[in-house]
Amino acid sequence: MTQTAHSQSTFSETAYTSRVFPLETMTVPGCDETILRGGRHLFPLLPDAFVGVRRIGVLGWGPQGRAQARNLRDSLADTDITVAVGLRPGSASAADARAHGFTEENGTLGDWLAVAADSDLVILLIADAALAAHHQEIFAALKPGAVIGLSHGFLLGHLRAHGGDFPPGHGVIAVCPKGMGDSVRRLYEQGAQINGAGINSSFAVHADPDGRATDLALGWSVALGSPYTFRTTLESEYRSDIVGERAILLGAVHGIVESLYTRYRLAGDDPVTAYEKSCENVTGPIAHTISRVGLRAVREGLDAAGREVFDRAYCATYGPTRELVAEIYDEVADGTELRSVILAERRLGTRPMSEIGGSPMWAVGAEVRARRVSRELQVEPFTAGVFVATMTAQVDEFAERGHPWSEIVNESIIEAVDSLLPYMHARDVAYMVDNCSRTARLGARRWGPRFQSAYEQIAYPASELPADEELLREFDTHPVHEALSCAAKLRPSVDISVA
Amino acid sequence: MTQTAHSQSTFSETAYTSRVFPLETMTVPGCDETILRGGRHLFPLLPDAFVGVRRIGVLGWGPQGRAQARNLRDSLADTDITVAVGLRPGSASAADARAHGFTEENGTLGDWLAVAADSDLVILLIADAALAAHHQEIFAALKPGAVIGLSHGFLLGHLRAHGGDFPPGHGVIAVCPKGMGDSVRRLYEQGAQINGAGINSSFAVHADPDGRATDLALGWSVALGSPYTFRTTLESEYRSDIVGERAILLGAVHGIVESLYTRYRLAGDDPVTAYEKSCENVTGPIAHTISRVGLRAVREGLDAAGREVFDRAYCATYGPTRELVAEIYDEVADGTELRSVILAERRLGTRPMSEIGGSPMWAVGAEVRARRVSRELQVEPFTAGVFVATMTAQVDEFAERGHPWSEIVNESIIEAVDSLLPYMHARDVAYMVDNCSRTARLGARRWGPRFQSAYEQIAYPASELPADEELLREFDTHPVHEALSCAAKLRPSVDISVA
Repeated sequence: MTQTAHSQSTFSETAYTSRVFPLETMTVPGCDETILRGGRHLFPLLPDAFVGVRRIGVLGWGPQGRAQARNLRDSLADTDITVAVGLRPGSASAADARAHGFTEENGTLGDWLAVAADSDLVILLIADAALAAHHQEIFAALKPGAVIGLSHGFLLGHLRAHGGDFPPGHGVIAVCPKGMGDSVRRLYEQGAQINGAGINSSFAVHADPDGRATDLALGWSVALGSPYTFRTTLESEYRSDIVGERAILLGAVHGIVESLYTRYRLAGDDPVTAYEKSCENVTGPIAHTISRVGLRAVREGLDAAGREVFDRAYCATYGPTRELVAEIYDEVADGTELRSVILAERRLGTRPMSEIGGSPMWAVGAEVRARRVSRELQVEPFTAGVFVATMTAQVDEFAERGHPWSEIVNESIIEAVDSLLPYMHARDVAYMVDNCSRTARLGARRWGPRFQSAYEQIAYPASELPADEELLREFDTHPVHEALSCAAKLRPSVDISVA
Repeated sequence: MTQTAHSQSTFSETAYTSRVFPLETMTVPGCDETILRGGRHLFPLLPDAFVGVRRIGVLGWGPQGRAQARNLRDSLADTDITVAVGLRPGSASAADARAHGFTEENGTLGDWLAVAADSDLVILLIADAALAAHHQEIFAALKPGAVIGLSHGFLLGHLRAHGGDFPPGHGVIAVCPKGMGDSVRRLYEQGAQINGAGINSSFAVHADPDGRATDLALGWSVALGSPYTFRTTLESEYRSDIVGERAILLGAVHGIVESLYTRYRLAGDDPVTAYEKSCENVTGPIAHTISRVGLRAVREGLDAAGREVFDRAYCATYGPTRELVAEIYDEVADGTELRSVILAERRLGTRPMSEIGGSPMWAVGAEVRARRVSRELQVEPFTAGVFVATMTAQVDEFAERGHPWSEIVNESIIEAVDSLLPYMHARDVAYMVDNCSRTARLGARRWGPRFQSAYEQIAYPASELPADEELLREFDTHPVHEALSCAAKLRPSVDISVA
């Protein structure tokens, strides 16, 4: 298996123009991408971007709905555009929405179909299963010319699997923050002090009957606080999003830390040390190093002996994880993965999913976190080789499948090290799996064990062999380093707070 | 989650009549099933069963083709029916077929399409991927009235997934031995000394344009050496076969032994002891006890302290594994699982699949096997509780989905303890996964890790809790014990030889 030299997007032209916002060109390996650098200085342009929109309806009050409704309302506070939240009758979220100022009294909280019928931009942030079950009712409620907004491509996959389509005559756009809803809100708040703090977003224009779609999407992204916004398609977003959370963002991380914890324990480490060398190392120093100075720097920060260990771990891991990411990608692109999610929802009904946080390693997490103040952890070379190889495998698979570089580095690296891993660092990986969206949770439970077994049964035994020099050379000269460095220039100087 | 009281087949009437063979009634919980007890004393009836068949073409020389062609030829030696083997041009198997007496010179070896065109019964035993790619050519080559024979339901699943069907005017029957091809041959040979030695088979009549199908299928099964033959449908066979190999027959066993080995190692056992308590215990004393005296006897053979450990392991394991078997069943019934196999074949192309036999535990297998002569291993209560609970979970899921009892006990218990586990005892579990059919291998690699994680993350932590008395009572009074005991009466007094 060889790595892929560079990506050329096969999903869409990544160049585009805006009537409203000043765009920039980001030069990435092999091509240029047009991007929008965000920030509060752009808020005065929002009324122009939202032309024709007097009311935005946000359906759903999960982590994304809760964050996006508030960010949009705050960013549009000086305009005459209102933001309303629509909930299902009897929704348990109503109290929290009211507590955050969305109330029936002021006309910003209501039944989801009523809010959909009243809004010029209807942003669908209800759970995937609810979207699968109720999108037809929502479509039927829309007023003429209302624009449909999405924050990931699940609905496209669902419609495709069932031979359906979006209703004609409506714009369909997506703005997809590359981080959890919680981070979308927290970093937005930090943006009041440090302009541009936020979570990067991709945007897609799927249907544009009146030419407003691109600027509306860009305005939405700016209003969420995205430091930079890049273009993709709904299909490309869907694939990279669903694959990414099954691989390096969630599923693979879980497999990595479970397998490494056991490996260190069997080698004689006590539980706390094994946890520090595995989970704590990934969510702490490795994520931090990648976030600050990039992928290659993880290896370069090691001494000679450490590099030798890193190299063997990297080379043993790259092949089996590349194979697994390819398998996930095939199943997502084919629709098989989505069918399994829908089957699971049907089978589980209203029963709670069993939790995976009971395995022995998580019992020592609190003790490890308590020790943080007294010592600084160094990058563990073996753990780093395994993690970086898995991340690179995803990057290469996405590149081979034709995703644009912005999407690749955001969906494989930046979302991991700047949003999810810091959150896992504050809690732990299993907690995150047990508490994320159902589609992500089902996917992580489906593929995390596959990664764990691939590490234990294929990669770790192979790590006894000498490193493959060709694979290391490919890593050293990999275009991802340049692409990540371009994207990193747009990163605001603030870390996500997870207090 | 509660267990299912008993099964009532929803797939078909399990009663049927034969013009040729003396049938028996087996009383199982809730109903009677018509079965055929096999043996060499029935060989004189074969010409009557095979009326209209002068030539049987066996396409493929994998483990089943190799066994079935030889058994059929030997059983029909005193008749004027010939058995020919058909292979793809340039097949690497031709030399071995010739070495076993199927030659071009004597007219019993030829191109697969030519053999198909010449035969009155065409038994399709080529690999699933080849069957998916070439069934149309084979159908087109058949002579009028030729009967299509299958040994599992893969092709039905494939046709259904692609909107195809079997060609009209042809009988379509299946005889499905509940064991590996190798066992089908070995036990047949042992049958020369002990009448009735063999592997049980199910049969199905999917299309019967001229009324010959049932006796033809029964004759085929008798000629293979099946000790008992029971009726099912192609759909029911397909589901139980594909689910079974992903669960207790292969995938779950792999997950059980990998997770238990690690558990015992972490508890302080040396590698050889940990292997003996996990893998060796399942393939040795546990399988042997179930084969000889049934499922309940595993628990009853333990002392009070052992039963307490068994009970906690059983109760902690039943729920999570039942959930997993239900998930597998849904994906198989929906066609999702088959799509993933076809995607994998496409992705892998001609590349070899990576092997899973490299994990640390398998390195000590040889040493453990060498120690067998000097000591007899006792049933390990924790291992037994985990294994028996997983097996019972599969039994219950099959019962809830409406499979007939013969199919349930053969596909969940007898095939495991009388065919596959003895083979794994001779080699090891990973070796078996790495060397079984591609559909089974892909399935075991897909689901084995899911079982492993469910044990490690959900079941084993829960095994610290007191046992659920209700679940234990259900196990104690489970109708499977009666069904298994009925089926066991038909078991010949010979074990499979795996020398």
